Amino acid sequence: MLETLLTQFVNCRNSTIALSAPLSEADMQIQADVFASPGKWHLAHTSWFFNEFILKRFNQQPTGFDGFDFLFNSYYESVGKRQPQNKRGLITRPSLVEILDYRQVIDKSMVSLLKTDLADDVLALIELGIHHEQQHQELFLTDILYNLSHNPLNPAYQKSDAKPFETLLPELTMQAFEGGLISIGHQNDDSFHYDNEQPNHRVFLEPFSLANRLVTNAEWINFIEAGGYDNALLWLSDGWHIKQNSGWEMPLYWEKCENAYQNFSLNGLQAVDLNAPVRHISYFEADAFARWRSKRLPTEAEWEYALTSDNHGLLQVYGELWQWTASPYTAYPGFKASAGAVGEYNGKFMNGQYVLRGSSFATAPNHSRASYRNFFAPHHRWQFSGLRLAE
Amino acid sequence: MLETLLTQFVNCRNSTIALSAPLSEADMQIQADVFASPGKWHLAHTSWFFNEFILKRFNQQPTGFDGFDFLFNSYYESVGKRQPQNKRGLITRPSLVEILDYRQVIDKSMVSLLKTDLADDVLALIELGIHHEQQHQELFLTDILYNLSHNPLNPAYQKSDAKPFETLLPELTMQAFEGGLISIGHQNDDSFHYDNEQPNHRVFLEPFSLANRLVTNAEWINFIEAGGYDNALLWLSDGWHIKQNSGWEMPLYWEKCENAYQNFSLNGLQAVDLNAPVRHISYFEADAFARWRSKRLPTEAEWEYALTSDNHGLLQVYGELWQWTASPYTAYPGFKASAGAVGEYNGKFMNGQYVLRGSSFATAPNHSRASYRNFFAPHHRWQFSGLRLAE
Amino acid sequence: MLETLLTQFVNCRNSTIALSAPLSEADMQIQADVFASPGKWHLAHTSWFFNEFILKRFNQQPTGFDGFDFLFNSYYESVGKRQPQNKRGLITRPSLVEILDYRQVIDKSMVSLLKTDLADDVLALIELGIHHEQQHQELFLTDILYNLSHNPLNPAYQKSDAKPFETLLPELTMQAFEGGLISIGHQNDDSFHYDNEQPNHRVFLEPFSLANRLVTNAEWINFIEAGGYDNALLWLSDGWHIKQNSGWEMPLYWEKCENAYQNFSLNGLQAVDLNAPVRHISYFEADAFARWRSKRLPTEAEWEYALTSDNHGLLQVYGELWQWTASPYTAYPGFKASAGAVGEYNGKFMNGQYVLRGSSFATAPNHSRASYRNFFAPHHRWQFSGLRLAE
Amino acid sequence: MLETLLTQFVNCRNSTIALSAPLSEADMQIQADVFASPGKWHLAHTSWFFNEFILKRFNQQPTGFDGFDFLFNSYYESVGKRQPQNKRGLITRPSLVEILDYRQVIDKSMVSLLKTDLADDVLALIELGIHHEQQHQELFLTDILYNLSHNPLNPAYQKSDAKPFETLLPELTMQAFEGGLISIGHQNDDSFHYDNEQPNHRVFLEPFSLANRLVTNAEWINFIEAGGYDNALLWLSDGWHIKQNSGWEMPLYWEKCENAYQNFSLNGLQAVDLNAPVRHISYFEADAFARWRSKRLPTEAEWEYALTSDNHGLLQVYGELWQWTASPYTAYPGFKASAGAVGEYNGKFMNGQYVLRGSSFATAPNHSRASYRNFFAPHHRWQFSGLRLAE
Repeated sequence: MLETLLTQFVNCRNSTIALSAPLSEADMQIQADVFASPGKWHLAHTSWFFNEFILKRFNQQPTGFDGFDFLFNSYYESVGKRQPQNKRGLITRPSLVEILDYRQVIDKSMVSLLKTDLADDVLALIELGIHHEQQHQELFLTDILYNLSHNPLNPAYQKSDAKPFETLLPELTMQAFEGGLISIGHQNDDSFHYDNEQPNHRVFLEPFSLANRLVTNAEWINFIEAGGYDNALLWLSDGWHIKQNSGWEMPLYWEKCENAYQNFSLNGLQAVDLNAPVRHISYFEADAFARWRSKRLPTEAEWEYALTSDNHGLLQVYGELWQWTASPYTAYPGFKASAGAVGEYNGKFMNGQYVLRGSSFATAPNHSRASYRNFFAPHHRWQFSGLRLAE
Repeated sequence: MLETLLTQFVNCRNSTIALSAPLSEADMQIQADVFASPGKWHLAHTSWFFNEFILKRFNQQPTGFDGFDFLFNSYYESVGKRQPQNKRGLITRPSLVEILDYRQVIDKSMVSLLKTDLADDVLALIELGIHHEQQHQELFLTDILYNLSHNPLNPAYQKSDAKPFETLLPELTMQAFEGGLISIGHQNDDSFHYDNEQPNHRVFLEPFSLANRLVTNAEWINFIEAGGYDNALLWLSDGWHIKQNSGWEMPLYWEKCENAYQNFSLNGLQAVDLNAPVRHISYFEADAFARWRSKRLPTEAEWEYALTSDNHGLLQVYGELWQWTASPYTAYPGFKASAGAVGEYNGKFMNGQYVLRGSSFATAPNHSRASYRNFFAPHHRWQFSGLRLAE
Repeated sequence: MLETLLTQFVNCRNSTIALSAPLSEADMQIQADVFASPGKWHLAHTSWFFNEFILKRFNQQPTGFDGFDFLFNSYYESVGKRQPQNKRGLITRPSLVEILDYRQVIDKSMVSLLKTDLADDVLALIELGIHHEQQHQELFLTDILYNLSHNPLNPAYQKSDAKPFETLLPELTMQAFEGGLISIGHQNDDSFHYDNEQPNHRVFLEPFSLANRLVTNAEWINFIEAGGYDNALLWLSDGWHIKQNSGWEMPLYWEKCENAYQNFSLNGLQAVDLNAPVRHISYFEADAFARWRSKRLPTEAEWEYALTSDNHGLLQVYGELWQWTASPYTAYPGFKASAGAVGEYNGKFMNGQYVLRGSSFATAPNHSRASYRNFFAPHHRWQFSGLRLAE
Repeated sequence: MLETLLTQFVNCRNSTIALSAPLSEADMQIQADVFASPGKWHLAHTSWFFNEFILKRFNQQPTGFDGFDFLFNSYYESVGKRQPQNKRGLITRPSLVEILDYRQVIDKSMVSLLKTDLADDVLALIELGIHHEQQHQELFLTDILYNLSHNPLNPAYQKSDAKPFETLLPELTMQAFEGGLISIGHQNDDSFHYDNEQPNHRVFLEPFSLANRLVTNAEWINFIEAGGYDNALLWLSDGWHIKQNSGWEMPLYWEKCENAYQNFSLNGLQAVDLNAPVRHISYFEADAFARWRSKRLPTEAEWEYALTSDNHGLLQVYGELWQWTASPYTAYPGFKASAGAVGEYNGKFMNGQYVLRGSSFATAPNHSRASYRNFFAPHHRWQFSGLRLAE
């Protein structure tokens, strides 16, 4: 296990650096909105996590990085004060070079430590730190995309020769599931999981069906052109008001240019790929679309139960897009936040958000598990989020 | 049934008028915040409801009330445009006299109609209109209290000789319940209920306990004085930020004056009654208090199941204060909104709010039922809301 | 003089009451924006002025009006704390009846006092109080108009049979003036004036011309239809941004209905009177109009000097509309604010406003004097403001 | 003249580059508030000016810089649309390298052009472009200082060994001037000036006095410690409200640390130099200080006339700090904005600002002239602004 964790650690840390390769320091400096942290901040904060929760315990925190504890704490009240979230983009010093140096010094200490005999709780915290950094790798990309999107020149993060979804798209079918008194939540075996996946518990489900695949861009264009964005009766009240005030008429990053839909992605501005699953939609839009189709969104229990059923027939489960569920993000019955400061990781955000299930093309592959609970506010659209219909 | 409904109608309409007796037109004109509608608006809107959904169907809408359809529609998109919610307080004309006239004309037509033979769906809509008006009777009081509270002279809605809770307060005990696969939701018999209480459905509950009574003001003062409002670790993240930005240090309408706590109520400014249940707290405060006591809030399923158990031992269930639950306000499995415009009554608000159970001293007594789901946003404090602990 | 002042006092106080005759208490309760004080507040504040600055000096302040000092102080920091300006509309108690009672008690004391032998400085303060109340009489009307304008029913303050400006409108001509080293400001003789009209001082003026009459609605429609509201090059930068953000396309209270322009006034909604002088325009609009006509606005020194010239040929000087000047509202050389709290009357507002000269149909006639300096912020449009061209 | 202008051009362009030497691209990327443009933007915009107004006239605009016209136009409505001012900091591409390339290409074309025979109006525009860039050199520093000031690590723009003002500070004396009918404004000879300095015109001045030197930090500390920031009667009403809402208790960039005052400057955080003139104060603070000292601020006419008087005895006139005057920034009598798009340079900002006279340590030396009119809004404090008393 120890050797594996060391390898995981090194691979994870290198992957973060690899993500920043196509970017300048300026690209990684800006923060176009409070939720879209700068790339530099992600590089530093993920290191801060190991320093704060591991190295400090062994009195191995690096010297010469005054102020980093303040600058790169995200939201841990029990650890101390921090840079306001909406001002992360104003920190030009430390420079990128200094942040990379900070990473290296921490890496060196962590690697040494990982070669020693460590207590189980320390190993668990290191594993948490790796998964934490992997989550930030996805955020790094969602935030870079958002930040670059404010440039009228539409600069691409990278140039890709990604092929469109040309393959025959399967017909949309509804897969039936029996339900009953089932169990969801992590089994609490040795495999990694967050505290919010706990405890495994019983839930009663009526029979239901889930769509075999995600909703596509072509299907979304039908919704747009049928007036879906203009029909208040399809929308939740909060969603309708946000839509009106924000002028939403299509997914985030879309524009219509001479009757053709284009969308801005990490590869720049391109024609919308009709067969690809629609992304960058809010919960409110997903919910309105489902109502327009006389369907609904799945609950997280339905989603998890279906996924763990034999021959479920569901496509595009992982590695495509996060899938909005109808479930507000709440504590499972008997939920206990982790002990110590990392108890602030998940539990205190259990208000006003919805659970998303599955994973996206930007999620680390080892995050693909049925019990994983991602969560965002219902108006947020900058994540790699799509939808799967239920009834 | 018909005669009873007529009696209900007349009683309900008279009760609304009785509530306005201690108030001047000016008192009923103002709107101190978007959510605190003017008294005059409540008088008119509840009449609009009968006009829009009943009288118009029979072509019996009154004449001579131009613009009232626009001014007194609350949020029914399918009915038409309306006065912006935050500008309700600027409508000085129609005057109170004209609004009372509007009420009387509508009452006269409604009474005539109620003496005829009416189809079941019409009777159901009239019954809905009565319950709708009863809900607004409580809102009339919560809103008047809020609006009067902005006056530094602390004017009382009424002078009461209410006795403090002098009787021996029962010791707080936790009542245990077994749980299992139980059912909640309205039975869908003939008795009145809202669409959001439907359908009755199965839920699995682990064993749990509920407090026999509500949390008191004395217990809340302990929370204040133990630094509960200063300890971020007790709070949900959203709640902490709202608390910090709003300067909450005690419940709404409380002030501390030379070491004594006072609160403003419909009876004016008075010393806090230590044995009375604490009221005018947000969900965030209730949740933080429960965490401080190493307890939690009940779910709505627990609350409803417990109430319907034999010998449950629970006090202060109805007629005291609404009780925050830990349950976000969502659709029950298989929920169908009512047909027609009244389908906007409940369903479109199923986002970002929490369910409250029970009822308050200001709630119409016939609203006391186990399946009733009240709902407000977690930061709202102007309702008659309290809390009951669970574990 | 004493008797005259008593008569002036009584007449002034009665005139204020007469203005409120067409209004309900509700009409006088609301405040649609921070600058548009409630009618009730004007009734009370003008009385507070006499109480604070006269009666208190003689220990004759009335009893039984607790809190009035706080509620009805406008902006006198040296007198004490006060109700926030944007919350004046929330004070429903004292009621209108109590405020009228407050007025009567103060009137009675003031009348008694005015029958005694008073020192010159007291007499001067009483005269100031009368002029103060007369200014509030005009504000009473501008504020009522603004407050009523938020009602989609367009309620009239009064029904008038005012004739349109049917008489032959004089051709617009430019009257030439020589200028030179002239004097402006009040002569400091015994006649009433505010401190900001002082001292009389020398100013050098180049030769200039002023239009013989004000700009009319017909001329303004030409400006609208020539795209004046769409041409950034006509506008000051601040004005352009406010216009864009506020959606100004015509004067305040105007609307275009099937190609006909209508405007809302104290008489309700009516067709725009083409020959009447345009009103309810901001400084920014007046300035843009003048630039469009290759003219400019007059300075206040030009205006005052022209008015005091023989055979000036200027029409519509007083009693029509206040006329924007190009002069920022600043202290005259050697300006000294009045001693005591009334020194806050004018001087502390000498920033960010422009001087208007003349007077409006709503101004007390005894306010017509060449040295009078009215002042408002350049974006304000709710006053009875028009413009006269210069070059 | 031609050769001189070429030299001026080259020197000016090099000076701008020299200013950016101590900074990283990240330092020059950020924009902490709408008014504090990024360093990169200044580098590009000053080049855009030459391209837009000179090179395009000769069809010599560079190719390969798509979008730069949009990105780097500041506020010229007659030239075309532009990047919103508050989003300048989000443009990470073009990179700094590309912007420097843009500068070089433009420089090369400009240098070629300057070696040819150019019409007088072209030469005048080039001279304007140079002075424009010199103004931006000062803004570059004020904006960098502001942007760096948001970093809790207090990073210095440069490390300097500047000596404190140790020399014997002259006693503050008031120098008397006679006034009379004098002239101000540029003489309109061949020497460079902006359109807003025109025309030279007559103004009548009463006798007055000006302080021989600027107000010092020590004197300002007296103001602070005498409660100057807490006494509403010293302040203009607008200033008092801004002060209250913004929490001003001392000049911008000051903090009090264990009873010692420190200020953040381009050299980092240092103890306040008691004999140095106080800087980073708003008009409102300057005005309140003057009132506290029973003095006032000079008008711009007094300042200009005094400076051009023989043996005026005034110290710290140029090269120290800009000096607030009591004069709102308005058009001189007979003012004509320059023809063409550069007519937007000054005239459209003649609202809501005050004139500052003199120049600062960061101003190009050739900008020192008696008729120069700088202007900023009265609440702005990020400029190198101080004050000189008058009476």
